[in-house]
Amino acid sequence: MPKAFIDQDFLLQTRTAQLLYHDFAAHMPIIDYHNHLSAKQVAENMVFENITQAWLYGDHYKWRAMRANGVNEEYITGKNTSDRQKFEKWAYTVPYTMRNPLYHWTHLELQRYFDIHELLSANTSNIIYERTSQILQTLQYSTQNLLQKMKVETICTTDDPIDDLVHHEAFNAMNIGIKMYPTFRADKVLEVYTPENYKIYVQKLGESANLNITSLSHLMGALTYRHDYFARRGCKLSDHGLDTIPYAQYNDKDVEASFQKLMRGVKLNSEEISQYQSFVLYHLALLDAQKGWVQQFHIGALRNNNTRLQKIIGADCGADSIGDFTVAQGMAQFFNKLDTENKLTKTIIYNLNPAYNEVFASMIGNFQDGNIVGKIQFGSGWWFLDQKDGMEKQINALSNMGLLSRFVGMLTDSRSFLSFPRHEYFRRILCNILGNDIENGELPNDMNWIGQMVQNICYHNAKNYFNLN
Amino acid sequence: MPKAFIDQDFLLQTRTAQLLYHDFAAHMPIIDYHNHLSAKQVAENMVFENITQAWLYGDHYKWRAMRANGVNEEYITGKNTSDRQKFEKWAYTVPYTMRNPLYHWTHLELQRYFDIHELLSANTSNIIYERTSQILQTLQYSTQNLLQKMKVETICTTDDPIDDLVHHEAFNAMNIGIKMYPTFRADKVLEVYTPENYKIYVQKLGESANLNITSLSHLMGALTYRHDYFARRGCKLSDHGLDTIPYAQYNDKDVEASFQKLMRGVKLNSEEISQYQSFVLYHLALLDAQKGWVQQFHIGALRNNNTRLQKIIGADCGADSIGDFTVAQGMAQFFNKLDTENKLTKTIIYNLNPAYNEVFASMIGNFQDGNIVGKIQFGSGWWFLDQKDGMEKQINALSNMGLLSRFVGMLTDSRSFLSFPRHEYFRRILCNILGNDIENGELPNDMNWIGQMVQNICYHNAKNYFNLN
Amino acid sequence: MPKAFIDQDFLLQTRTAQLLYHDFAAHMPIIDYHNHLSAKQVAENMVFENITQAWLYGDHYKWRAMRANGVNEEYITGKNTSDRQKFEKWAYTVPYTMRNPLYHWTHLELQRYFDIHELLSANTSNIIYERTSQILQTLQYSTQNLLQKMKVETICTTDDPIDDLVHHEAFNAMNIGIKMYPTFRADKVLEVYTPENYKIYVQKLGESANLNITSLSHLMGALTYRHDYFARRGCKLSDHGLDTIPYAQYNDKDVEASFQKLMRGVKLNSEEISQYQSFVLYHLALLDAQKGWVQQFHIGALRNNNTRLQKIIGADCGADSIGDFTVAQGMAQFFNKLDTENKLTKTIIYNLNPAYNEVFASMIGNFQDGNIVGKIQFGSGWWFLDQKDGMEKQINALSNMGLLSRFVGMLTDSRSFLSFPRHEYFRRILCNILGNDIENGELPNDMNWIGQMVQNICYHNAKNYFNLN
Repeated sequence: MPKAFIDQDFLLQTRTAQLLYHDFAAHMPIIDYHNHLSAKQVAENMVFENITQAWLYGDHYKWRAMRANGVNEEYITGKNTSDRQKFEKWAYTVPYTMRNPLYHWTHLELQRYFDIHELLSANTSNIIYERTSQILQTLQYSTQNLLQKMKVETICTTDDPIDDLVHHEAFNAMNIGIKMYPTFRADKVLEVYTPENYKIYVQKLGESANLNITSLSHLMGALTYRHDYFARRGCKLSDHGLDTIPYAQYNDKDVEASFQKLMRGVKLNSEEISQYQSFVLYHLALLDAQKGWVQQFHIGALRNNNTRLQKIIGADCGADSIGDFTVAQGMAQFFNKLDTENKLTKTIIYNLNPAYNEVFASMIGNFQDGNIVGKIQFGSGWWFLDQKDGMEKQINALSNMGLLSRFVGMLTDSRSFLSFPRHEYFRRILCNILGNDIENGELPNDMNWIGQMVQNICYHNAKNYFNLN
Repeated sequence: MPKAFIDQDFLLQTRTAQLLYHDFAAHMPIIDYHNHLSAKQVAENMVFENITQAWLYGDHYKWRAMRANGVNEEYITGKNTSDRQKFEKWAYTVPYTMRNPLYHWTHLELQRYFDIHELLSANTSNIIYERTSQILQTLQYSTQNLLQKMKVETICTTDDPIDDLVHHEAFNAMNIGIKMYPTFRADKVLEVYTPENYKIYVQKLGESANLNITSLSHLMGALTYRHDYFARRGCKLSDHGLDTIPYAQYNDKDVEASFQKLMRGVKLNSEEISQYQSFVLYHLALLDAQKGWVQQFHIGALRNNNTRLQKIIGADCGADSIGDFTVAQGMAQFFNKLDTENKLTKTIIYNLNPAYNEVFASMIGNFQDGNIVGKIQFGSGWWFLDQKDGMEKQINALSNMGLLSRFVGMLTDSRSFLSFPRHEYFRRILCNILGNDIENGELPNDMNWIGQMVQNICYHNAKNYFNLN
Repeated sequence: MPKAFIDQDFLLQTRTAQLLYHDFAAHMPIIDYHNHLSAKQVAENMVFENITQAWLYGDHYKWRAMRANGVNEEYITGKNTSDRQKFEKWAYTVPYTMRNPLYHWTHLELQRYFDIHELLSANTSNIIYERTSQILQTLQYSTQNLLQKMKVETICTTDDPIDDLVHHEAFNAMNIGIKMYPTFRADKVLEVYTPENYKIYVQKLGESANLNITSLSHLMGALTYRHDYFARRGCKLSDHGLDTIPYAQYNDKDVEASFQKLMRGVKLNSEEISQYQSFVLYHLALLDAQKGWVQQFHIGALRNNNTRLQKIIGADCGADSIGDFTVAQGMAQFFNKLDTENKLTKTIIYNLNPAYNEVFASMIGNFQDGNIVGKIQFGSGWWFLDQKDGMEKQINALSNMGLLSRFVGMLTDSRSFLSFPRHEYFRRILCNILGNDIENGELPNDMNWIGQMVQNICYHNAKNYFNLN
């Protein structure tokens, strides 16, 4: 008799796995140390009108599935269709997503937030749209209450250096038992491909730092100012989204010349770009080291592949995919430079191409310094890899090449307030792996120690590592 | 008690998998939309004299295994050994191929075509040679009957643009209930490494189009002529065998100059080659788009690695292997250019290096346009990956990053008339994966829907996608 | 009820796997054809004072784990801490290594050498330190007796061409039933990055060959002299540690000029380096071919990533990791050149990046020549891949693309005299894979044939292949 779909022992294939999950993992609070939630929507305790707003606005995973399923763009991101019509197309698509993580996520979220155990399809579309929308419109389902429902303790959003962080301040002042901190993500300072855009950004950055930026040192000064600004609002993390870590030899004068070129609207060649990025990335790393922040690197996406969609929808339209960039050498040289100067702060590297898992998992071992437990981390399966296979592969690579026990664990990386059951998903997968090993005699049957290890990975390791409040 | 080797529930590990296979998959007809069968042998309804002719002539998979097993080339491809002697060496080798797909294929084919359930080895070599050869010599085992035996409905061969396709015409005129269509594979138009050879090919291409090719536009004209010629014979697919998809910026005048260089016997440098190939590939894609064909790309082989063998045997001598070419960026740019111009036709990308599965599986999502269901496809495990591990990895990658339910499924890619049980092999693997998921509670136990999904992947998706009447 | 940790059926999940291991694999002797044991310590039949000396001196796997666990370097490689203190830190770290191969290796070694079945942790640190040290100090636990305890028949160490091999001679003269042969590893002849160091090495090499090396042909002459010297001491293998196989077109005069540059202290540019290395590697391959040796290539490490640690500890400080170098094309061209000239000797390629397993596994098939059984080998999971996942992936890739039955099997690659249970580990994994296939009906239940296949992979294949007396 097949096991029921998503029952209480979902993904837990052995008795030991079930014990580990239910007795140790399930009730741990959540530190979601990296996501893309809107600070404004949190601070304003927004209430959604319907499930389309909560699920389909901005979720490019679902958009991609709908497009592959032959749904016309008008019903995905178009302006001339209603929220209900869009949901109908999504509901129609859901059964076609079987074996895609969307199928699990969708039904986990229906169960956990709405106590709906029916399967979503064209047949159940109407009833589920009605029921979820009704529920969502109540204050108990406001953004803050959605977080509380999932025992979220802390969230770290992702913010541009010029962001004023007023929503973070306002929210933390409310003192509702959840903390929200910003993350310093200065990607735009490295995106020097289009001088016109860069100049505009530099102008804005200057304004945010009360500085007229006319030189590279001004630029770094403004970044330092904003870094301090973020720090005063509780920020403890930075983040970078990169195809690969740039590492070129440069001298400061050449980089200054490149900066001046950009300000004059002159395009840089590929060598100049690489040197410029190496300079900026290095100096940002110094700022992080000075404050003892955790620096994060999200590596390997091939972005903005569909010009047509981007023109209609903008960035993050669902036309990004997995790249095959060379990563090991530049990454090693960059970290080595910082380590040599004693300026390598706590670091998490996230990998988007599963073929590189072992490169990442073995890389971190080069720079563990014995002073901070698990100082360099191989981050959890990210974006396209944020699914069962991807998580298992990341956990296995980390286990084989490093210390799983010191892993800081899961994060949603999501824009959606309904994504938090992914922590449950991760915890079940983790417990299942450990449970299998115990049952097979590949780990000792020491439930105290391994239960504690589970709790550490689910919560305590992150708590200690990020040093948040 | 171990399960019997290749019994009726071969590869079907759960009761649910068995139901899915026997009730839904087993009896579906076959659309073999990509193979390398000889159209002549089909049209002439050829009868083989013995199993060596059917199995060992031209099968470089078996040649490689024999070489690794210490069999002298004379007994593999040599002219001074008999068919029986060659078979003996193959039979001797078979037990050494355990865990290689050849071991499964060999015994599946013995069972399905010849009802032979003994294992092939040196001991059974003689009796199996006699029995199979006797059977093969009967008309019931002619090429056409071999196809009918396996419920093959349609086959698509692989053909050079200059091919006259007389065998396709002759065969389809017979109306025996199987259709055979050509595929337009213009690899030689991209192989510009040796000007002398290229010039000879261009001359032949001109002749096939009644055109004296003296310019690039003549070349494209001739290709258009032949493309039309193929279309009139029912062709609906093109194909390209490439290490990676070339994508270089070019202007037409430079490419014209390169063409003239080639015609004068002058070698192109690597930049010129890349631009030339980018030009030709783009224009071939336009032809496919105009007619609504499916374009296929077989990516990633490192070919012709053994000069010694190639001199003796020629191309396809079994000295090709898996490359590690960078693929993502060029592929994305090529498809984006076509998509931007609304000229991206239905496309299948096949991947030879399993480390790139996720790159391919996520790439297709960038270009699904919502107008055609499953418009961009990640093709089935190919060549070295046409085995259980390879198929499972392709199915898993596709499931995780796209829609398995919309997959057009299996193809043999084979030169052999005895390869069709590979569809059975694929179907068993597919049903086993889905059956496991159902039994584990990772998919709902909805046999109607999932049974239909199985039948779609085995047959209906291809039927709809390729539009082969 | 979970299976006990590391019991007699450790890693053997089926009855058939258990039969294969216990009846066929377990009692086979060991040919450890590649390791880094100290010939001196073997010849002198050294006795260890304590477990720290045997386990922690020089084991960078353990160092890396300790650093990741927050252990200060002073307690890892420092001079101001005692052996007992170091062991305490290791014992404290062990429970944190669960799921890392260190956890299995540690307890396998405690069981097999010391009959200790307790788990190592901070709690058992003292008692295990005492007990193991007491045992190690007895003559029954001398280096030679440790080898005999594990039924080691032959070991091949790894040696620089200038090594005088006196310990090999002395040991073999003892005739204790174990043979120790050197391996010719000329890495330093290819390391031309620092002219000063290179010049010093060339000087030493000249001295070892009674030759004043002032030209490239002198250099090759000296290497030939040392190659002969090694051969007379029973050497049958060479080895190379490379990031990727260099293959550049060169002419001898340019390479001679590069040699002269190096001798004058002038740095080579990257093209010159590549040509120089291509030249030397090719000529070393000719020497191996002439004598019918087996040449080994360890490919893919990214070495010396941490300047700080290297300054303190030197090379092999535990700051190497897995690279992502392009490998296929250069490797194919190099082997093809040798094959074309009929100079390709028996060859083993070892791969450090699991994403390249299929590239390696399919590469060997290009150069099997039918004259030597399994002539080109895909070596066992190496370094970071010397664990269950890594071994399984290597076995599966080899099975799918080549002939597992002809595999020469396991080697320790270790510096430690306590590493030999890794052969047991490998054998259990191998038997488990084959046992599973038999139980699933994916292999026939022919225990005679598959039992013999197991014994061949564990012992006989290596015995025949290496031709060690």
